[in-house]
Amino acid sequence: MIRIAIAGYGNLGRGVESAVSKCDDMELVALFTRRAPETVKPVTGVPVYSMDKACEMADKIDVMILCGGSAKDLPEQTPAMAEYFNVVDSFDTHAKIPEHFAAVDAVCKKSGKVGIISIGWDPGLFSLNRMLGQAILPCGNDYTFWGKGVSQGHSDAIRRIEGVKDARQYTIPVEDALTKVRNGENPELTTRQKHTRECFVVAEDGADLKAIEEQIVTMPNYFADYDTTVHFISEEELMRDHKGIPHGGMVFRTGTTGFDNENKHVVEFKLTLDSNPEFTSSVLVAYARAAYRLASEGNSGCKTIFDIAPAYIHPASPEELRKNLL
Amino acid sequence: MIRIAIAGYGNLGRGVESAVSKCDDMELVALFTRRAPETVKPVTGVPVYSMDKACEMADKIDVMILCGGSAKDLPEQTPAMAEYFNVVDSFDTHAKIPEHFAAVDAVCKKSGKVGIISIGWDPGLFSLNRMLGQAILPCGNDYTFWGKGVSQGHSDAIRRIEGVKDARQYTIPVEDALTKVRNGENPELTTRQKHTRECFVVAEDGADLKAIEEQIVTMPNYFADYDTTVHFISEEELMRDHKGIPHGGMVFRTGTTGFDNENKHVVEFKLTLDSNPEFTSSVLVAYARAAYRLASEGNSGCKTIFDIAPAYIHPASPEELRKNLL
Repeated sequence: MIRIAIAGYGNLGRGVESAVSKCDDMELVALFTRRAPETVKPVTGVPVYSMDKACEMADKIDVMILCGGSAKDLPEQTPAMAEYFNVVDSFDTHAKIPEHFAAVDAVCKKSGKVGIISIGWDPGLFSLNRMLGQAILPCGNDYTFWGKGVSQGHSDAIRRIEGVKDARQYTIPVEDALTKVRNGENPELTTRQKHTRECFVVAEDGADLKAIEEQIVTMPNYFADYDTTVHFISEEELMRDHKGIPHGGMVFRTGTTGFDNENKHVVEFKLTLDSNPEFTSSVLVAYARAAYRLASEGNSGCKTIFDIAPAYIHPASPEELRKNLL
Repeated sequence: MIRIAIAGYGNLGRGVESAVSKCDDMELVALFTRRAPETVKPVTGVPVYSMDKACEMADKIDVMILCGGSAKDLPEQTPAMAEYFNVVDSFDTHAKIPEHFAAVDAVCKKSGKVGIISIGWDPGLFSLNRMLGQAILPCGNDYTFWGKGVSQGHSDAIRRIEGVKDARQYTIPVEDALTKVRNGENPELTTRQKHTRECFVVAEDGADLKAIEEQIVTMPNYFADYDTTVHFISEEELMRDHKGIPHGGMVFRTGTTGFDNENKHVVEFKLTLDSNPEFTSSVLVAYARAAYRLASEGNSGCKTIFDIAPAYIHPASPEELRKNLL
């Protein structure tokens, strides 16, 4: 049994707790939190410890799955934990991945542990598909679309506007753009042509709705470059119709082959997810299996989804995989 | 530059010839054939040699890409070539993969070469997606659909019927089945419910069309278990409308997460290919890069798409991949 621990118990941590329970070759042995341990009540009843006690349990845990946020938690926690454990995280600040990789790699090289970073679906499975597509069809274009799904960052941005009580923002791919890409037309698409944004906003009593809407649709970086629609709804409606955290999207590679580039090909990888954090957690847990196996074979250092032979994430043996899945 | 050679110059060999020409880090140095070399005229003018001269060129070639058929050529040629070269093939007789793997592995272990087998899209990218899907969503089902595309084996079966001059058979996924799978309904599907078969047949003058149609639709293994439609067309129509070799299909993993399996997820990988052999060739060439790199690092033995870290197939460095694609 692979002994798994979780650091951080939010949506992602709960997702990992559930995903581990579905794996016959794993057991969840500890949960670490920065809160007072007695205030955290995991669904499975796994023991809860203070985060700073983790280093005392190095010999009881095979893989630590980091479930904190990319902005503040993971840049500190992943390297810190990699001193004692094989680690897996979902670090998703794309621009800072090289820096995070270097930090985790330096620690892992010293500690002899395996660190797998930026696991999930983007970064993660989407990255893998962008990479495979480019390698196989060097003459071509790739496209990534996100949604329909809830963007946490954009929802938070709306909540910071005065007079807004709560909000939920959906990112939606533009159907016409998808059609052009699927037809292999290789369109050049602006930000506005790829996605629209739909906002469901609960306003405070007596708030100036016109002013809120204006502030949303003109907000730089977040909304100004998109066609954005704003719906004001009641708190009850928000809870009833928008409490899920669905997401997903598509990665396309469209390219040509033949001496005259006469043959077109479209490769599409599509995710439709009821729960963004639970799916991300499921990918993390599969790659925790890889971390364990890689470490067992004597590997160390930081790795990404690009560096790991796929067989490492599946519980079956190489023989079974070849026989049943190839 | 990675020095590539091709063994066998049919549709697949021509596809490899074209695909290599699109890779800046590769050069095609030789083509081997069982025909009289002077009768083979490659598009690029690459030197053509008799197949039995290959062993004399072991130090001039980094990777040999085998482009013969799975029924008779590859079971002999891949192990034979692996004595002298790193090899890549597209062996696609699913039931015999373990046997083929063992044969290639035994030779590679002795010769110190890398052999990568069963590369393409099925087996190949489809296998990879079946495997990833199972590993990430252990509670779920997978589905593979093929088409719309030309099945060479089924077209050949029709051509063997008396009175048939030529034929083309398309495998077509059933739209209703796809919809159910995409909706996460986890349907149980019979052979007939998954695919239909459409046949375009050129009959000899005066042939008994009714008898031909009856022989097709009742043919065991090939057509009896499917809803099959037969169209008789002229030779001109066949050449005009059906000369391409399109194919493709979809791999789905549909599964649930959450303690009560309350969240559904659908993972879909879809290929729409104008040319089945040219796309397969493009995958072979990308994995030839992996064979070269793995061998350069001192690896040997037989590998499949499951055993190879994805970064090995992309020309960019790990640093560039992390920066630009993760």
